[in-house]
Amino acid sequence: MHHRTAEFRALYSKVLADLKTFVGTKNDVVLFTASGTGAMEASVSNLTSPGDKVLVLSAGKFGERWESLAKTYGCQVEMVRSPYGETVTPQQIQEKLKPEHVALYMQGTESSTGVRHDVEGIARVLKGSETLLVVDAITGLGTTTFDVDGWGVDVIIGGSQKAVMIPPGLAYCAVSERAWRRMESTKNPRYYFDLRKERKSGAKGESSYTPSTALIAALSTALDYLREQGGGDLATGRDLLIRNAETAAAMTRAAAQALGLKLFAVSSPGAALTAIASPDGIDSGDIAKIFRNRFAAVIANGQGEMKGQLFRIAHLGLYDYLDTIAIIGALEHTLVEIGRKVELGAGLRAAQMVFAQSRGQVTRHGGLSAGNMA
Amino acid sequence: MHHRTAEFRALYSKVLADLKTFVGTKNDVVLFTASGTGAMEASVSNLTSPGDKVLVLSAGKFGERWESLAKTYGCQVEMVRSPYGETVTPQQIQEKLKPEHVALYMQGTESSTGVRHDVEGIARVLKGSETLLVVDAITGLGTTTFDVDGWGVDVIIGGSQKAVMIPPGLAYCAVSERAWRRMESTKNPRYYFDLRKERKSGAKGESSYTPSTALIAALSTALDYLREQGGGDLATGRDLLIRNAETAAAMTRAAAQALGLKLFAVSSPGAALTAIASPDGIDSGDIAKIFRNRFAAVIANGQGEMKGQLFRIAHLGLYDYLDTIAIIGALEHTLVEIGRKVELGAGLRAAQMVFAQSRGQVTRHGGLSAGNMA
Repeated sequence: MHHRTAEFRALYSKVLADLKTFVGTKNDVVLFTASGTGAMEASVSNLTSPGDKVLVLSAGKFGERWESLAKTYGCQVEMVRSPYGETVTPQQIQEKLKPEHVALYMQGTESSTGVRHDVEGIARVLKGSETLLVVDAITGLGTTTFDVDGWGVDVIIGGSQKAVMIPPGLAYCAVSERAWRRMESTKNPRYYFDLRKERKSGAKGESSYTPSTALIAALSTALDYLREQGGGDLATGRDLLIRNAETAAAMTRAAAQALGLKLFAVSSPGAALTAIASPDGIDSGDIAKIFRNRFAAVIANGQGEMKGQLFRIAHLGLYDYLDTIAIIGALEHTLVEIGRKVELGAGLRAAQMVFAQSRGQVTRHGGLSAGNMA
Repeated sequence: MHHRTAEFRALYSKVLADLKTFVGTKNDVVLFTASGTGAMEASVSNLTSPGDKVLVLSAGKFGERWESLAKTYGCQVEMVRSPYGETVTPQQIQEKLKPEHVALYMQGTESSTGVRHDVEGIARVLKGSETLLVVDAITGLGTTTFDVDGWGVDVIIGGSQKAVMIPPGLAYCAVSERAWRRMESTKNPRYYFDLRKERKSGAKGESSYTPSTALIAALSTALDYLREQGGGDLATGRDLLIRNAETAAAMTRAAAQALGLKLFAVSSPGAALTAIASPDGIDSGDIAKIFRNRFAAVIANGQGEMKGQLFRIAHLGLYDYLDTIAIIGALEHTLVEIGRKVELGAGLRAAQMVFAQSRGQVTRHGGLSAGNMA
């Protein structure tokens, strides 16, 4: 399909409209052919000028990416940090926030640790200020509920390869009216990631530069699938997707604890993934290797300074009951293989209990977590 | 396929190595998940500092894109312009070039007009200067021969959707040692399009940010196909691809002239596409519409100020003898439909003569232009 045709314009307009519904906002959505990091960069280059003061919330590798990005664009960066595995509280933000902060950058869920940050609470702290709230929700959208317009999230960022279940290569963001206004005066350079130019093109059903047509067609199909799961309503399908991830996450957490493992994100675990601390003396890379070699299953090692110390099990998008229970079974065998004392079946039983408790609710609209997501 | 696995690293390393061969250079190649414009932006943001003087060659819409990009990044831009449909001569460059120009930005082939610029001649003018030569060859690679290292092209840029025949969404560029050195001191901000960071990641078989895995797998397959066409040698396959485009372009030009049409790019037509001036009083958009509605064939209207005034027929990548002869047939009928006096078969006959003359040569290695490219 050529991208300068009526056929493609209809597809592109539909995808942009569906993404608004998926994100849950009235704000215009802009799409880029890029990784999610591209939309993160757009949120810095379009909303700031060199020398601007910004606040960055960081408790993991992706918080640090905001820090690097803001510094790259000449911002004066003030950090609000918490240790890996923990969250940053609205109180911490309250103490650091100053009227001159032009924007606050944060993650909805921090994929390197599995923590869900309190976007709602932090949005409340910012209410009435001129500070724009920018949320990287690349793993958050479709695994966590965001009331984007109600809370006042100015920019929320998503990617194609996470909960919307297609291959990587597309990034998108929804942008508030006051963020659009801010761009009229900001001075940092942007071209490929120029949000205002892309918004104008999008209104005509086009992208400014040749888009990844194949991925946009795939995204359209994925959103149709969610609409179908929601009985014709995309927002309902998205809510089912979130509940599915929440159930899989709760099953995994219960199983890990029943097997004597320590969860890495204790205070505020998200549903996108569960990070589990590697047992003492064990390199989590070895655990990932056993999963791969024995079960052809991909679980992730820790990133950056967490490498070797934790492993991460994903729950977003297509992962369903069957995947979750299977991975928990594999986890039990893996623990035996690395020499841990394990009561085989203890993790599985704990997960079954969680699923049974949630079942009435999560299967209401057609069994999304009963194994039919794939 | 997950992008942080040994399997993907092997694929990625192979694709980067094959791209070097395809481009025909010893320089390292960097790949981005983005449109070609992303790599154009990288060539500006990585190689310049605000206030730097640069030279931009422009004779069409994509030359103007270089101008906008360089201005976006605060460069002092000196233009060397020619009218649409013409080329810029090495003499024109010679007259404008000053030692303080840090870079010269140009197209290999200007897709908006079908013109091929004289990269070799301009490279000769720059020889011995400190001015880096940056060539957008998004439609040039695979349709024109570039002696990248011999001529001293510092950055050459390609995209996935052109001669390498896969869907859009990937951009790549080959970068010379002196361009890498230049980046040590340049000051413009770059993050997603940071060439040095991406080169480091590439050396480990990785991309800095989540890449478009599906398109990279497709690119690998396309390059394998070219290798196979070249009897096991990728460079030979690429040369056949170029010769195929050249034959299709020559057939199309001969046909257009036999049908009394005026070629838009007379002095230096490229092989990527042929731009044909719309007959007097006819909107070229109407011609494109007839192609689409009657023959389900996509030909392109003019871009920007050329809209309505010319139409463009592509020859790159998969387009082969069958496509070319078929489109010429459709062109004859289209001309009849818009009320032109046409001797049916005159364009086809002229194209046949061109093909017959070239045949001995272009089918030598397995008939690339004998219809088996698809």
